Amino acid sequence: MTNDRSDADAMRHWWRTSIIDMEPGKIAFRGHPIQDLIGNVSFPQMIWLMVRGDKPSADEAALFEAALVAGVDHGPQAPSIAAARMAATCGVGLNNAMATAVNMLGDVHGGAGEQCAELYYGISDKLRAGQGLSEAVTSGLDDWRAEHGKIVSGFGHRFHKPVDPRAPRLMQLVREAAAKGTVSGRFADIGEEVQAELGRQRGGRPIAMNIDGATAVIFCELGFPAPLSRGLFCLSRSVGVLAHAWEQMNQGGRNKGPMPPSYLPLYEAKEDDR
Amino acid sequence: MTNDRSDADAMRHWWRTSIIDMEPGKIAFRGHPIQDLIGNVSFPQMIWLMVRGDKPSADEAALFEAALVAGVDHGPQAPSIAAARMAATCGVGLNNAMATAVNMLGDVHGGAGEQCAELYYGISDKLRAGQGLSEAVTSGLDDWRAEHGKIVSGFGHRFHKPVDPRAPRLMQLVREAAAKGTVSGRFADIGEEVQAELGRQRGGRPIAMNIDGATAVIFCELGFPAPLSRGLFCLSRSVGVLAHAWEQMNQGGRNKGPMPPSYLPLYEAKEDDR
Amino acid sequence: MTNDRSDADAMRHWWRTSIIDMEPGKIAFRGHPIQDLIGNVSFPQMIWLMVRGDKPSADEAALFEAALVAGVDHGPQAPSIAAARMAATCGVGLNNAMATAVNMLGDVHGGAGEQCAELYYGISDKLRAGQGLSEAVTSGLDDWRAEHGKIVSGFGHRFHKPVDPRAPRLMQLVREAAAKGTVSGRFADIGEEVQAELGRQRGGRPIAMNIDGATAVIFCELGFPAPLSRGLFCLSRSVGVLAHAWEQMNQGGRNKGPMPPSYLPLYEAKEDDR
Amino acid sequence: MTNDRSDADAMRHWWRTSIIDMEPGKIAFRGHPIQDLIGNVSFPQMIWLMVRGDKPSADEAALFEAALVAGVDHGPQAPSIAAARMAATCGVGLNNAMATAVNMLGDVHGGAGEQCAELYYGISDKLRAGQGLSEAVTSGLDDWRAEHGKIVSGFGHRFHKPVDPRAPRLMQLVREAAAKGTVSGRFADIGEEVQAELGRQRGGRPIAMNIDGATAVIFCELGFPAPLSRGLFCLSRSVGVLAHAWEQMNQGGRNKGPMPPSYLPLYEAKEDDR
Repeated sequence: MTNDRSDADAMRHWWRTSIIDMEPGKIAFRGHPIQDLIGNVSFPQMIWLMVRGDKPSADEAALFEAALVAGVDHGPQAPSIAAARMAATCGVGLNNAMATAVNMLGDVHGGAGEQCAELYYGISDKLRAGQGLSEAVTSGLDDWRAEHGKIVSGFGHRFHKPVDPRAPRLMQLVREAAAKGTVSGRFADIGEEVQAELGRQRGGRPIAMNIDGATAVIFCELGFPAPLSRGLFCLSRSVGVLAHAWEQMNQGGRNKGPMPPSYLPLYEAKEDDR
Repeated sequence: MTNDRSDADAMRHWWRTSIIDMEPGKIAFRGHPIQDLIGNVSFPQMIWLMVRGDKPSADEAALFEAALVAGVDHGPQAPSIAAARMAATCGVGLNNAMATAVNMLGDVHGGAGEQCAELYYGISDKLRAGQGLSEAVTSGLDDWRAEHGKIVSGFGHRFHKPVDPRAPRLMQLVREAAAKGTVSGRFADIGEEVQAELGRQRGGRPIAMNIDGATAVIFCELGFPAPLSRGLFCLSRSVGVLAHAWEQMNQGGRNKGPMPPSYLPLYEAKEDDR
Repeated sequence: MTNDRSDADAMRHWWRTSIIDMEPGKIAFRGHPIQDLIGNVSFPQMIWLMVRGDKPSADEAALFEAALVAGVDHGPQAPSIAAARMAATCGVGLNNAMATAVNMLGDVHGGAGEQCAELYYGISDKLRAGQGLSEAVTSGLDDWRAEHGKIVSGFGHRFHKPVDPRAPRLMQLVREAAAKGTVSGRFADIGEEVQAELGRQRGGRPIAMNIDGATAVIFCELGFPAPLSRGLFCLSRSVGVLAHAWEQMNQGGRNKGPMPPSYLPLYEAKEDDR
Repeated sequence: MTNDRSDADAMRHWWRTSIIDMEPGKIAFRGHPIQDLIGNVSFPQMIWLMVRGDKPSADEAALFEAALVAGVDHGPQAPSIAAARMAATCGVGLNNAMATAVNMLGDVHGGAGEQCAELYYGISDKLRAGQGLSEAVTSGLDDWRAEHGKIVSGFGHRFHKPVDPRAPRLMQLVREAAAKGTVSGRFADIGEEVQAELGRQRGGRPIAMNIDGATAVIFCELGFPAPLSRGLFCLSRSVGVLAHAWEQMNQGGRNKGPMPPSYLPLYEAKEDDR
């Protein structure tokens, strides 16, 4: 009997979780019965609860929500959106089309927010250790670049020059939240000093903070671990992915390739490359 | 020059969209500049805007939000959640783990809401054509089963018996919204009559409306086309997927299989099956 | 103790398989120790063994191999290949890039072989029931179209006109195998009569058999169930997917979209569509 | 007109490739018309040609083929295989089930071969630079561990103790190929010295070379760049994935979770963890 217990228990323990507690007729998330949550918490509050285990205040949730709203889409130039639209014409389900896109939000396409949050947290640690802001930013950038390379995630945009219109609006909301005491404003300071320092390093040419730099400020202000910046971006971007996959399904098309069928990829015999 | 126009235009037209309008420094979704949306619309309103093109009222958005909150997770018994947790131990990114789960929300695992919405819309068409509710439900069920088989999506649950705790709460919110005039209540009537009819067909044994049956009521009340029931479910469930993948990453593990490594799958030489 | 047995056994039985038998230090596939297979069976023979459970003759394996070779790639015009190449620039692993492509080989992009095999098997059943070839093909086409629609999978090609160069070569190999008695030639007859009948139905304009029509002939001759036509195509196409993802990684690029970044998708305000 | 040229050319160049050359009625891979390849090259030769651009000799292809055969499957304990079987019950296509599995072959689950090849190539470079085998192995291990951590990919197996039955057979084939002059045997020497050195570092307790250690020897002997070890493993493992997904489809089941539905994951209120 003890052994019986242990086989079943071994299995149950293998799949243990602190997120959901279920019995027939009962579902509770993080200790809250689902029927108490439905209609009483907002969707962003529910996301926060599920991922972190606690409930945010209304003001925290509002700032969090702004970051989720800001990242929903960047159009069919983005490989993930293009792939979702192509998938939608290949005879797979809407879920498969959505998965195709999210799957492509890797280190380069979806990881900038995470990398930028690492930068900010590194600088924050230096501040806590007593460095001044300017010194912490300079040495934090050095540390980060030693690991990640020269180009700093969260700043500059190959398309939106000189300004990514999402960043100033998000930073404004962070400053308002700091003024209300919802957040400390520490990471807003860090983000803006990084931006200023990068401009100085470019000989005075200003560089924009982009969506990843701004949402990372928010996620750090709210205390999310860096890897969740990517996960939350995936949630946000899934909205645009769904919208585009659905629009494509209504546009029609079969096996939509990257360009109209009359255009052929260029064949380069290998010698041509030399 | 005309031809030049046409090559570039052919490409641009190949990727045409009504969702996003971009220029350097400008992003507008469905005609609204992004900076006007951030901080001013809720995340559910943004989802609605992206997918449909119009903005919901606050009351519509609240009902919509309840459906998004309700479907976030069903724990590691669900193959999608289990797969996301396994993927999180295989050395792939959080985005890949999330995609793995969403990819599995196919006709059987994630399609019930869509199928149920088709049933409701079919019955609604019969009502519009002049049939009474009871007759429309009976014949609507017949039509639906001819295409989809005997088991009616949205009703009954292999685990939550006798009641799926999410459904009554969602239906309560629909009724409240109907009382306020936010929605018509037409699909709430349909859903409840389907539930009653299924009970009668089982010789009086009641059957529960499940999460898919209840969210389909909401999505139909709000006018979403049936396939979007699946897409919106994917958005909602992505929340639980992220939470579980992240929890697993923190639990650790490498190449987590479906059961502890000391348990081996049973090998059945083919003859054993006969 | 009996109960203990049953918990562990329930788990083991839940994951039962006839494919692989493992113990520490032992791996056997379909009853054959792996060390006896390595170096002694070809890769196509191994594929056959794994999927079906028996080993093919050398002649059967050669015909099977020709079908696997024929389907490896169709270039970046194909959405799956384009998506793999885009994924390869997004900071995900080579495995993720490969999965992205295979995931898109749905009913429209990768399902033609399966649908065509269903057509052939349906016609074959009619032959067995005593119909003549011409009658069986005509009524088989009618049956198939009632389910699948007007366009017959496996015939015609939007690009390769008038001839898909893979089909005649594959059919030649089928005929040679039939002459040797390796296969019956029954499905070659069926495929060619379908092609002829489709030409007659187009008022005498000939239509090409395409790669899917020809590989379906081979898979049916060899006795593979129809759904495996898709699965085997996925194996074959994975080769081109790998080659393209790898070539793209060597070409470089970050977040490669569907067209050069200087070309913008066309924004159509919704009114423009009307 | 010049400009017209440049728009179309920009697109064509954006998707340039040396793999496939197509025109209506013509398909050539790496310069070889497809009809000349079908029936004349083996599937492994085709894989080699596609990925590398040249054709292997028959002896090279045979050794390559052995590695492809060896890695096809490791059963439902492997998360990738379990996920494919679960996906097969969720109402998605066989291609989606296959993609689900391949997607999970990340750094931990599918990357060992690549990491091991990096180790071997690093040691090989030291040999070329004049170091003796023993010294090159010791310092190569040090270098590799500085980047990848203590556990050396390709050696040891959590399940197959003391011997992974695939490795000795593969090494035997490498030695035979070296005796024939097909390969140099250099990487066989390296692999075996790594194995011996690891045993010495464990105080004389022998450690097994596993499948990844052995296939990496083969891929290095044949001159494949390290990342292709992972890509080729994905091709090989796709075979088992297909077999298991197909077996599961025939077993039936709906929404197959990781354990029988009567077993519930253990809920741990967060305090329990402390």
